[in-house]
Amino acid sequence: MTPDTITDEPPSKTRLRLWLRLLRTTRTVEAELRDHLRRDFGTTLPRFDVMAALSRHRDGLKMSQLSGVLRVSNGNVTGIVDRLVEDGFVIRVPVAGDRRASAVRLTRKGEEEFARQAAAHEGWIDAQLAGLSPEAAAEMAGALARLLDQKEGADAQ
Amino acid sequence: MTPDTITDEPPSKTRLRLWLRLLRTTRTVEAELRDHLRRDFGTTLPRFDVMAALSRHRDGLKMSQLSGVLRVSNGNVTGIVDRLVEDGFVIRVPVAGDRRASAVRLTRKGEEEFARQAAAHEGWIDAQLAGLSPEAAAEMAGALARLLDQKEGADAQ
Repeated sequence: MTPDTITDEPPSKTRLRLWLRLLRTTRTVEAELRDHLRRDFGTTLPRFDVMAALSRHRDGLKMSQLSGVLRVSNGNVTGIVDRLVEDGFVIRVPVAGDRRASAVRLTRKGEEEFARQAAAHEGWIDAQLAGLSPEAAAEMAGALARLLDQKEGADAQ
Repeated sequence: MTPDTITDEPPSKTRLRLWLRLLRTTRTVEAELRDHLRRDFGTTLPRFDVMAALSRHRDGLKMSQLSGVLRVSNGNVTGIVDRLVEDGFVIRVPVAGDRRASAVRLTRKGEEEFARQAAAHEGWIDAQLAGLSPEAAAEMAGALARLLDQKEGADAQ
């Protein structure tokens, strides 16, 4: 549908239609990502998300911070981290000034593994969204960024 | 960002940026929907999704079909349906030609409750996506529909 084919449906119906397609798109792409991660790296999306968060925080993250980043329960994060430690991708590190807390960070091996996974991930997303031209993708990304900025600005007030 | 500000970043980076914003948008909106459903109707998103699926299939759905629609485990659907039955929103009905199977459908009370929830849901989405003009929303919905059609066409081959 191009703008010149817009019907006179109420804006709320148009936005509802968009919402249902946003959900369907993210669920479809996520399902494909899960398949790729499992087949190509023997890993899962939550494991990938944990490693992605740690790769953005090379000094390490406390478990509570990691949990916040992922918006999953602390319990889940603990299990995921335990497995990543066993696999040698992550190590526990002490937290300066807090003897009882511990943080985790990627090991060298974990950084190398995540670099491979992230490069593959970028390629999968590129292939899955190939139906959108770079111009269309940039425009949509820009519109969503403005929307998110507005929402976050509104929430902060 | 408007199209005339596109940099010369590789298309894969643009699509990755779009993907991360799609995820952030759907997660942000879903979190707000969960809050609204809880506060205004004392219900949850999975309950809403089950009722939405049943409202599209007034003759009822088998538990296995409901599970497929929701892409959650059968166990989760069972618990959700049990609660909806207790609340009088859903009833179990026999399946013609299959004595061991049972299906569920909305009761009159469930239809009325879902109609209220769906109307409120449309209003919440309208408010949450109000930062997108109807034209921008229609264009994005159209682009995602074409993308999903292509993907589903490709998967079916």
